Amino acid sequence: MPKQVDHRERRETIAHALWRVVERQGWSRATMREVSREADVSLGQLQHYFSSRAAMLTFAMEFAAEQVSHRVNRGLAVLDQPPHPREVLRVTLLEMLPLRPEARATDRMNAAYVLEALHDPELREQACVGLRDGRDLVERLVREAQADGHIPAGRDPAVETDLILALTGFTPLLELGVVEPPAAVAAIDQHLDRLFSS
Amino acid sequence: MPKQVDHRERRETIAHALWRVVERQGWSRATMREVSREADVSLGQLQHYFSSRAAMLTFAMEFAAEQVSHRVNRGLAVLDQPPHPREVLRVTLLEMLPLRPEARATDRMNAAYVLEALHDPELREQACVGLRDGRDLVERLVREAQADGHIPAGRDPAVETDLILALTGFTPLLELGVVEPPAAVAAIDQHLDRLFSS
Repeated sequence: MPKQVDHRERRETIAHALWRVVERQGWSRATMREVSREADVSLGQLQHYFSSRAAMLTFAMEFAAEQVSHRVNRGLAVLDQPPHPREVLRVTLLEMLPLRPEARATDRMNAAYVLEALHDPELREQACVGLRDGRDLVERLVREAQADGHIPAGRDPAVETDLILALTGFTPLLELGVVEPPAAVAAIDQHLDRLFSS
Repeated sequence: MPKQVDHRERRETIAHALWRVVERQGWSRATMREVSREADVSLGQLQHYFSSRAAMLTFAMEFAAEQVSHRVNRGLAVLDQPPHPREVLRVTLLEMLPLRPEARATDRMNAAYVLEALHDPELREQACVGLRDGRDLVERLVREAQADGHIPAGRDPAVETDLILALTGFTPLLELGVVEPPAAVAAIDQHLDRLFSS
């Protein structure tokens, strides 16, 4: 009796294939046919799992967000417990940047996703929800750190949250080699030192 | 005798048409045919001016960079003379963000351009040159401000330059409405206040 293929597992395999195609060739060339070839499934099978490119991209993005979340948790697990809020923000921010190959693949897809979302109301709504959730998470960390006296009381937590998120602007600079990874990490450390300094 | 059409002017008209198509539909749908329709020229004429989509995108990006430069200069002209270096950096940074319609069109094209550049060695080289020129300009402003005593001597100008450039990460947050323009401006003012404070 053939082993039943796990639906979720198959979708994740396809998501990985999409990441590889996007990393190599860009989203505009990531057709259903190209992804089915990369995932080694038939076009019909691919369409069984995803009815459209947008549906495939949406799943791949959700899966990528989970992967970032796993990487953040792994990064947090190796810190002194309980971790200092500065280190929690640092790990969270660094894992959003294309500093390592696995982050680069998902970051490229994320950039393609944002561009697609500007012209597709459904994707746009999903992208906004994802970004707002990320923003809420960072703001919660900032507020907690401030409540515990790690961030000066005079700082506006909403402004500080926006500044932290805006630093994901290192992504294209890193991707194009205009800023090297150690320089990006040094700049983020500088920013966090200033945020946490009294 | 028919008025001779200025080559440069025609190319700029096409660049504007490309911006509109990219803003409305995204780069992946900005075919030569679509742009020729938008620019109201025949496909053959368009191909006379630009041999490929990449060539058209490159020109449109260079033209966009000139437009940003004009907007920065107009912004600087209305400041008290000579302008304070904090204000020069502020105008430069704000004009790089999609805070106004004309900036939004060029920012979307820029995002598409960076994504394309990752998979096209020629575009990549041009994108790197453009970004490095921009980075050099900002670093020169930071170093001058520091030499003139406006930025504390202890600050590392390379790190501060990278942090300023990274704040262009507000672009997707603004585009998707996760951060509103006044909040982005407030955050940038906060960052500059901290940079220029002793």
